[in-house]
Amino acid sequence: MTTRKVILDCDPGHDDAISIIIAASKLSHLEILGITTVAGNVEVEKNTVNALKVKDLIGLDVPVIQGAKRPLINKMEIATEIHGESGMDGPTLPHPKSTADSGHAVDFIIEQLSTVKGKVTLVPTGPLTNIALALMKAPEIKHKIDEIVLMGGGTFGNWTPTAEFNIFVDAEAAKVVFESGVHVTMFGLDATHQVIATKEVQQRLAKVDNKVAKFVSELLVFFGEMYEDYFGFEGGPIHDACTTMYLLKPELFDFKHVNVAVETKGELTYGVTSVDLLKVTGKIPNTHFAYKVDQEEFWNLFESVLQSYDEVE
Amino acid sequence: MTTRKVILDCDPGHDDAISIIIAASKLSHLEILGITTVAGNVEVEKNTVNALKVKDLIGLDVPVIQGAKRPLINKMEIATEIHGESGMDGPTLPHPKSTADSGHAVDFIIEQLSTVKGKVTLVPTGPLTNIALALMKAPEIKHKIDEIVLMGGGTFGNWTPTAEFNIFVDAEAAKVVFESGVHVTMFGLDATHQVIATKEVQQRLAKVDNKVAKFVSELLVFFGEMYEDYFGFEGGPIHDACTTMYLLKPELFDFKHVNVAVETKGELTYGVTSVDLLKVTGKIPNTHFAYKVDQEEFWNLFESVLQSYDEVE
Amino acid sequence: MTTRKVILDCDPGHDDAISIIIAASKLSHLEILGITTVAGNVEVEKNTVNALKVKDLIGLDVPVIQGAKRPLINKMEIATEIHGESGMDGPTLPHPKSTADSGHAVDFIIEQLSTVKGKVTLVPTGPLTNIALALMKAPEIKHKIDEIVLMGGGTFGNWTPTAEFNIFVDAEAAKVVFESGVHVTMFGLDATHQVIATKEVQQRLAKVDNKVAKFVSELLVFFGEMYEDYFGFEGGPIHDACTTMYLLKPELFDFKHVNVAVETKGELTYGVTSVDLLKVTGKIPNTHFAYKVDQEEFWNLFESVLQSYDEVE
Amino acid sequence: MTTRKVILDCDPGHDDAISIIIAASKLSHLEILGITTVAGNVEVEKNTVNALKVKDLIGLDVPVIQGAKRPLINKMEIATEIHGESGMDGPTLPHPKSTADSGHAVDFIIEQLSTVKGKVTLVPTGPLTNIALALMKAPEIKHKIDEIVLMGGGTFGNWTPTAEFNIFVDAEAAKVVFESGVHVTMFGLDATHQVIATKEVQQRLAKVDNKVAKFVSELLVFFGEMYEDYFGFEGGPIHDACTTMYLLKPELFDFKHVNVAVETKGELTYGVTSVDLLKVTGKIPNTHFAYKVDQEEFWNLFESVLQSYDEVE
Repeated sequence: MTTRKVILDCDPGHDDAISIIIAASKLSHLEILGITTVAGNVEVEKNTVNALKVKDLIGLDVPVIQGAKRPLINKMEIATEIHGESGMDGPTLPHPKSTADSGHAVDFIIEQLSTVKGKVTLVPTGPLTNIALALMKAPEIKHKIDEIVLMGGGTFGNWTPTAEFNIFVDAEAAKVVFESGVHVTMFGLDATHQVIATKEVQQRLAKVDNKVAKFVSELLVFFGEMYEDYFGFEGGPIHDACTTMYLLKPELFDFKHVNVAVETKGELTYGVTSVDLLKVTGKIPNTHFAYKVDQEEFWNLFESVLQSYDEVE
Repeated sequence: MTTRKVILDCDPGHDDAISIIIAASKLSHLEILGITTVAGNVEVEKNTVNALKVKDLIGLDVPVIQGAKRPLINKMEIATEIHGESGMDGPTLPHPKSTADSGHAVDFIIEQLSTVKGKVTLVPTGPLTNIALALMKAPEIKHKIDEIVLMGGGTFGNWTPTAEFNIFVDAEAAKVVFESGVHVTMFGLDATHQVIATKEVQQRLAKVDNKVAKFVSELLVFFGEMYEDYFGFEGGPIHDACTTMYLLKPELFDFKHVNVAVETKGELTYGVTSVDLLKVTGKIPNTHFAYKVDQEEFWNLFESVLQSYDEVE
Repeated sequence: MTTRKVILDCDPGHDDAISIIIAASKLSHLEILGITTVAGNVEVEKNTVNALKVKDLIGLDVPVIQGAKRPLINKMEIATEIHGESGMDGPTLPHPKSTADSGHAVDFIIEQLSTVKGKVTLVPTGPLTNIALALMKAPEIKHKIDEIVLMGGGTFGNWTPTAEFNIFVDAEAAKVVFESGVHVTMFGLDATHQVIATKEVQQRLAKVDNKVAKFVSELLVFFGEMYEDYFGFEGGPIHDACTTMYLLKPELFDFKHVNVAVETKGELTYGVTSVDLLKVTGKIPNTHFAYKVDQEEFWNLFESVLQSYDEVE
Repeated sequence: MTTRKVILDCDPGHDDAISIIIAASKLSHLEILGITTVAGNVEVEKNTVNALKVKDLIGLDVPVIQGAKRPLINKMEIATEIHGESGMDGPTLPHPKSTADSGHAVDFIIEQLSTVKGKVTLVPTGPLTNIALALMKAPEIKHKIDEIVLMGGGTFGNWTPTAEFNIFVDAEAAKVVFESGVHVTMFGLDATHQVIATKEVQQRLAKVDNKVAKFVSELLVFFGEMYEDYFGFEGGPIHDACTTMYLLKPELFDFKHVNVAVETKGELTYGVTSVDLLKVTGKIPNTHFAYKVDQEEFWNLFESVLQSYDEVE
């Protein structure tokens, strides 16, 4: 597998943190150009601190650049019900050693895409505000984007009965992204609800004995309790992790090539992703929609990823 | 089981026809006050003729009254892709012996509900136009409705990626029904896609040797081919039949008591039923939403229903 | 001028009452087939009582039939801020001698249109619920409608910044009417705000000395005070009166033949009438839109109407 | 009058060009920090060239920076029907001596607002895309904005029956601006249709004998013909000029302090500005809405502005 250049655009977030850990592991062939943050699970400032903490934990040396403080048009919505006050409640990590790099995430994305040799894969695991702003401000960058591998949407919802949180927070941004002409690989709830870190999974992973694995285990315990309380699930789905797991091993997932469009105008359905699985719209496919996960191989690889951190001090 | 009074409001329609046959069978304890028709699968006049043909076939003696010619607000939409030009293509039945009873379905519904002793169950298996008009014109009748047992909606769509045909045709009517305060029992696509008359099912039912069963078999063959061509299914889901099968034997289905609301304003999501399975809206449950079918028992009972027509000449 | 058959569909209402008085005056050549009532300014039951009171006052012998209790789809909205608790506060009239005729306004309208010789003009001065229900239930009646002469809408609003009360109360009904293919003559706020019963007008009319004129004067005083308080106007615009004044003397008004469409989906603009004065939409004109009133002649004729009641006991 | 720092954000455009000429005249006390361009009347690249040509013509030495190539969310819409292919058809100006300054308008606006001493007035006379992007990317700049003096919207429309061109092109951007908390002074069609450069006005101004006045005269002739053909007007309203005329002499206009909100979701009413003149919404005023122009003084001052260019070579 050749090296792929990626920008991780996120709002860590339990599953965002895990997504970063996967991308930065020894098993990964990704070159992380930078981590950009966005308002989402909690306020962007908190998300930035969380990203820096994770960077310190795993000894990752990449720029972290803060981005949009609020959705494009929509009122701000956060999810402390799920992620706690800090946005990454559960484990305790030391204050970050450094602060974010200067500049704005949108400019960083545009600059990297304009100057880097070859194409870049964008990996947004929060609301799509930064990506949309970059596409609005500099539409020409789309030719340098290899793929947008995102977590969001699905054929059903979790924040409303019909809309998923990331898309609901900024449906206008999502509309811009899906209509941009850039190829999207989409991990919506249909896929991510197949990777629930149940108690059984938690116990298995708890046996991996290194500090990164320990951190992940604590995340999963807290996240699992929140999902149990709020949604009655048997554990937390590690939604965002699907994106980077896919980049490590695409065969973990089955896809359908379909058209996906985003509702921005409904009274009850703001943020719905209309996934044309039955091909009834006649619209051209713009998305590889993940609908099935090989769960056994997923958790096997995930365990290996955690084991690969044994040597990190 | 005590007798329940029902009005079958329908747009036959392959699966509507089957629904009537179930309701009128010897195994049924339903008292059919009348059959009302509505524009839906095809134009209301054709739907009325189809209802009369089925009535003749099974020797049923109840009024048939024609209703709304078009949706409340929406433009007309029909589904000849699925049901053929006549709305009930496949088998050939003789021209009906009689014509529809005089009057308008909406007045028939209001009058029955106003005069009949006890409560009445409404069983709409087409667009909800007639039911909504009755509720608009005479809101006081709602206290005489036992239950509205309907086929429509679901957590996903078949006519658009997110909306089911019956609701999509007249979402405003559906909104009126779901917000009416009358209890709704809902068989959406989540349930009805579990009762697909596959080739195997078709072969089993083809062995029942009477003219009604023969008619049903021919319906299923035609309907199955349409679903195969249009949607890539392995047979036709006999959607509407769920309503009367439920009235014969409620235990065939598992339900969740949830809030269901109808989108009438979206750009992509007109006619979506927002089914609050995760209880995230805080809205009061208004619907028993069928989510699971005991398929074995379903087809067993259905076979018995067909066998019960052995003596009909 | 030959006799025109009319049905007055209203929610009296100060200006509705005046509209009836104009239609029933000796100067009128209208044959009033009946008065139908609708929920609007206040609840339909109150509007019916008010219609009966006016009927008694002027010795009019026509059926009064009650209609829709609430808008088609929308939540109920009433305007006691403007019309007082009774819907016709100000003057005191005796309890009506009779009650409303039996049946429903919608059926009365359909029946009259189906059976009367020649065409009928519908004159709705409240929300368009009854008219829309009649068109929905019996679309064939549209060929018997001469014209729908209505008060509603405009290029600006009074109930929201952009929507007028009658249309806002039931925009779906209005949409059905304007899209029905029946010719509409529309008196929106652009016209009706030109017929404000200022103090000067009130004083002039107060000199007409008969009991009907006295009643009207009392209406205008109350209505004027409400408009002063609520909107800062110098008197009440007798909106609904434009419809019947037009039927008495069309030359009082200047019209443009334009397309009018009704917004039912906006977030801020529910109930807006989009009046294509600049012909920018390319849509076919469906409406004669009154934009100018000959105020001098209007009040002259209005005074004569009141004087014509001198002989009523 | 003390000096006010302004950024002119525009899509020249006949009336935009005139607006710049007013701002840069000897009678003005404005300090123009820069001219930023936006897609609107025509593509942004053409608007930029037009801005540069005007800058050359009047010998203005300020940066010109190009901005957004398309609206935030909406599809692109241009107005060659009104402004011709070049966006400023009519007079012929030489190719610009220079090109635009480097960088993006959004960054220029943010940088100026972040670094300039005191507050800055933004003067957008095209779609509000650049201003909205700046507010999205750097919400903290709003405290450095003195006022947003804009041309757009109104209580009626010109591009649709209910929406004005600038707002219709990017209603989401307009929504962001009006909801930003920054004070807006709004010149909508209600005001700008009071400053029509009729033939009489054109003749008067044609007597001013300098090259800038000659250019303006040629603009007015072309613009007037387009308005006559397309809208049946007696000349072109010099919409955008209201903004800078106001900055020169605020007393030319009468204002109401009201709430203005922008519709982004309607089916017919996208881009409507809901101007709460009757104070029926209860929302806090956010806008000084110009509703009346002292036409005599307006044209007097405008003539003086043109005369002030007598010495420009």
